[in-house]
Amino acid sequence: MGKKIVIVGGVAAGPKAACRLKRLMPDAEVTVIDQDNLISYGGCGIPYYVSGDVADEKELRSTSFHMVRDEYFFDKAKGVKTLTSTRALAVDRVKKSVRLENLKTGEKSEIGYDSLILATGSQPVLPPIPGNQAEGVFTISDLHKAIAIKEMIAKGKVGKAVVIGGGAIGIEMAEALTDLWGVETAIIEFKDQLLPRIIDWPLAAILEKQLRDHNVEVFLGESAEEILIQDGKVSAVRTGKRTLDADMVILAVGVRPRSQLAAEAGLLVSASGGIVVNERMQTSDPDIYAAGDCVEITHLVSGKRFVAPFGSMANREGRVAADNIAGIPSVFKGGVGSFIVKAFELSVGSVGLSLESARAEGFDADFSLSSPSDRAHFFPGQDIICLEMIFDRRTRKVLGFQGTGPVNDALSARIDAAAVALSAGATIDDFANIEMAYSPPFSPAIDPINAAAYIADNLCDQRMRQISMEEFYHWMADHASHPDWQVLDVRHEKQASPFVERFGPSLWSSMPYDQVRDRYAELPKDKKLIVFCNAGSRSFEVQLFLDYVGMRNSTVLPGGFNVIRRMGAEWLPVS
Amino acid sequence: MGKKIVIVGGVAAGPKAACRLKRLMPDAEVTVIDQDNLISYGGCGIPYYVSGDVADEKELRSTSFHMVRDEYFFDKAKGVKTLTSTRALAVDRVKKSVRLENLKTGEKSEIGYDSLILATGSQPVLPPIPGNQAEGVFTISDLHKAIAIKEMIAKGKVGKAVVIGGGAIGIEMAEALTDLWGVETAIIEFKDQLLPRIIDWPLAAILEKQLRDHNVEVFLGESAEEILIQDGKVSAVRTGKRTLDADMVILAVGVRPRSQLAAEAGLLVSASGGIVVNERMQTSDPDIYAAGDCVEITHLVSGKRFVAPFGSMANREGRVAADNIAGIPSVFKGGVGSFIVKAFELSVGSVGLSLESARAEGFDADFSLSSPSDRAHFFPGQDIICLEMIFDRRTRKVLGFQGTGPVNDALSARIDAAAVALSAGATIDDFANIEMAYSPPFSPAIDPINAAAYIADNLCDQRMRQISMEEFYHWMADHASHPDWQVLDVRHEKQASPFVERFGPSLWSSMPYDQVRDRYAELPKDKKLIVFCNAGSRSFEVQLFLDYVGMRNSTVLPGGFNVIRRMGAEWLPVS
Repeated sequence: MGKKIVIVGGVAAGPKAACRLKRLMPDAEVTVIDQDNLISYGGCGIPYYVSGDVADEKELRSTSFHMVRDEYFFDKAKGVKTLTSTRALAVDRVKKSVRLENLKTGEKSEIGYDSLILATGSQPVLPPIPGNQAEGVFTISDLHKAIAIKEMIAKGKVGKAVVIGGGAIGIEMAEALTDLWGVETAIIEFKDQLLPRIIDWPLAAILEKQLRDHNVEVFLGESAEEILIQDGKVSAVRTGKRTLDADMVILAVGVRPRSQLAAEAGLLVSASGGIVVNERMQTSDPDIYAAGDCVEITHLVSGKRFVAPFGSMANREGRVAADNIAGIPSVFKGGVGSFIVKAFELSVGSVGLSLESARAEGFDADFSLSSPSDRAHFFPGQDIICLEMIFDRRTRKVLGFQGTGPVNDALSARIDAAAVALSAGATIDDFANIEMAYSPPFSPAIDPINAAAYIADNLCDQRMRQISMEEFYHWMADHASHPDWQVLDVRHEKQASPFVERFGPSLWSSMPYDQVRDRYAELPKDKKLIVFCNAGSRSFEVQLFLDYVGMRNSTVLPGGFNVIRRMGAEWLPVS
Repeated sequence: MGKKIVIVGGVAAGPKAACRLKRLMPDAEVTVIDQDNLISYGGCGIPYYVSGDVADEKELRSTSFHMVRDEYFFDKAKGVKTLTSTRALAVDRVKKSVRLENLKTGEKSEIGYDSLILATGSQPVLPPIPGNQAEGVFTISDLHKAIAIKEMIAKGKVGKAVVIGGGAIGIEMAEALTDLWGVETAIIEFKDQLLPRIIDWPLAAILEKQLRDHNVEVFLGESAEEILIQDGKVSAVRTGKRTLDADMVILAVGVRPRSQLAAEAGLLVSASGGIVVNERMQTSDPDIYAAGDCVEITHLVSGKRFVAPFGSMANREGRVAADNIAGIPSVFKGGVGSFIVKAFELSVGSVGLSLESARAEGFDADFSLSSPSDRAHFFPGQDIICLEMIFDRRTRKVLGFQGTGPVNDALSARIDAAAVALSAGATIDDFANIEMAYSPPFSPAIDPINAAAYIADNLCDQRMRQISMEEFYHWMADHASHPDWQVLDVRHEKQASPFVERFGPSLWSSMPYDQVRDRYAELPKDKKLIVFCNAGSRSFEVQLFLDYVGMRNSTVLPGGFNVIRRMGAEWLPVS
């Protein structure tokens, strides 16, 4: 018999490592321990199971060739032993053994190891509010919870639901509840935007509008203070500002690494709770590896350590851990936080740092905001994507890339390409020459990823001056805050006129793009002109021309009306 | 007045450089010369104009905000002068001037320059066969040709068409003619596969089947020997093997750089006809730049120079040329040949070198062929993509990546990510850790690009042995060629049984994947077992297990039935 390898955790990293190990070392005795009886499932698919897109939970734990990944499968197909419904109580690093408890029988036992992998995953953070354990309150921690949620809805017991937390899982669950079940759903988010720290405000506003347009109520800057209970069941959620009726509450305020077992065994665990590993996925004990949601990895943009709880990452880390145990010197250098989520008819994605995060990390960070077509603008079915590139003015390094778009893979393609570039430390100039495959059904001749870099280049070289959407929205809400500002709308007259009519020409003036070279003398010199068009590119050209003729009183609103229309605003003229 | 800049060529690189120059140097006098009266159009959109997807040719030369890019537009909006219907006859490098002819009036003139950009593009190769100039014979060289083709079809004059050339333009034109107009169309390709040198045979076979399934006839390994003429119009195309009736013939056998003006001016021009430029897009005369289809650039994988006639590339090169003229030291390092084409309901893409090209370039090239889901396999609407990764066994560098998939952006996303990685000289191990944004609606937890690298890793480390589709198809056509071969089908029995029935158990045996560990002793030791499943991954696991128990007589058919079903074969049982 070969090496004895014990793996604690049977969802993503654990099974991946186990199977890879058996392929590399067929004579090894590989045992996967999990406290659950359901293992090796696609946890990220839970919202789609709840919504009904995925009919049966078995699909989430089946292979692409429709075999359920249960104990039988791991034994017969993979040669891997599984001990399910079994809890790992403690690791004895001197004896090199793990103490186990069979959760069905209560029986205790020990299992020895030559190498141990901790793939203990993460657990949902339980917000410390009264009522958080009531019937009808759920976290999305495992398949059993998902089954219980779906059963409760299917039985018609849920008319209203409150989701606490505006992150990816909260958004996906809100869609699942609303879209297919017609549950009246509200999201409460403590921060003043959805997906905080992942995307910046303009894109978060687009996401928020998408949710509202699909009948999801969104309450930002509010925290749940109490879950109210009636007849032993949840009845409402009270925030500082309101009380929302609820038959079901989903707690989705984040996850934290499950690292207690590691910590109790004396392994290094970081302040954020992530198990500390090197690039070989080794913990501070060289015979113990860790992988998946329970570890901290290096952020390849910030250089700091972070927890990246993604099933995709877990699989890659699990493979690297297995390689090293088998003597193959694989490394996992870290991650860049590639992220994508579907929200009804919108894709939202990001990679690297948000503008807010980048500034908090000390970078001299700035952004380019654009709203190009996702394929040739003459190709049927083309749509607008909104993109923000975050870059460091000092080093010209790109720090992040994020966007919203329709639910095709157009945004995902750009996020993925950006992820590869960010991992390699790419600059604005590298992004300007990324060679996206071009054909009108798939992309425009000037790809959005290149165009974003062009704008960043113009900003860095101080050829372009811009104001942020935040500044613009603030002024639109309070024109007196900057009495000398005026919009110069360079779109077609018929596009500009509803705005001119609404706000009056002293606030919103119109001069079409192709007339500026002839008519610029008509423009006021005592105003700050906010040049406005659909995407920002005409505005930039007008700014350059005005600079050239000595009128340096303009600023560009990047992204333009394409972005604003998607963000929504009560001041927009109805068209 | 500032610098005088003359640009010869007004389609892609030329206008891009002109507009960038006016932005960087608003006082410059920028003049674009073109022999055509239609300029600045999306030439790659021509097939979609012919098909009717794009209703009006004006859309191909309009901005995203619906202004036609004509002489007025360039003058008023961009501050760029255009001399259309004007041919550049010669460049006098000593006087720094270009001699011009107004093609409408015959008038000759000269224009001086401080900097000159040659953006003369490419021209279709005209195959030297009798009849190539007949009425009804077209190349896809400019918008006028496109308009003429569409008019001829719209008038009902085209019942049958022959496309000569199985490259991207030939395929796109075949779709345009067939799909929306119902023209009976045949493609003739001199090589023995479609898209030669761009993709390898298994994927070309998938493309071929797609075309045939949509009623396009495909004749490979045949060359057109004569275009037959009746009443002054084309009537048929004769190959060495057959005569095909045709009311219209499209010649699409490739393009070559239009570099005569450069060559006659004494500038360095390569043997393949591309104008030689450095990374600043400067020709051998430092005051003359060149960009677009007319130049040769460095292939970042092979290290050789190549011509990359893509509108996207032309735009990026044009921008770099403009930057340098304006004193910004931008560089264009080269390309990796990112490519994508739509053929009916199929996307076909590639980047880097094909296996055939890589071997011809002297690499120790091998390939991984896979057929994963394009998103989580449980997500509704998921589809299979077929991917081939080409790598160098000696250095583990990835040399190329290609695939077929449905017409969404799933394939394009992987090609784009691969393009960024190839540009950075990525290895198999880098590809194994590319961080594609993961969420079930967009991707599987183990992304296809990572999985392709895993297979390449297993091949490189000699954990996996495979045969090629070519070898397999050859054996299926002639079992006597290898009387000791036998398929071991490890799929479900119900999937395998039609094959076992058709070929008999001595040629096609069945043993489901999850039974091999118990039943392997039943397998023959005197046969070479071709392990067969849907995608290749179960086959690989079975091979590893058989090796472990001392039966090293197996080989994997990578890509498996997923690929074969899409390639088609007359020997496939009807299901």
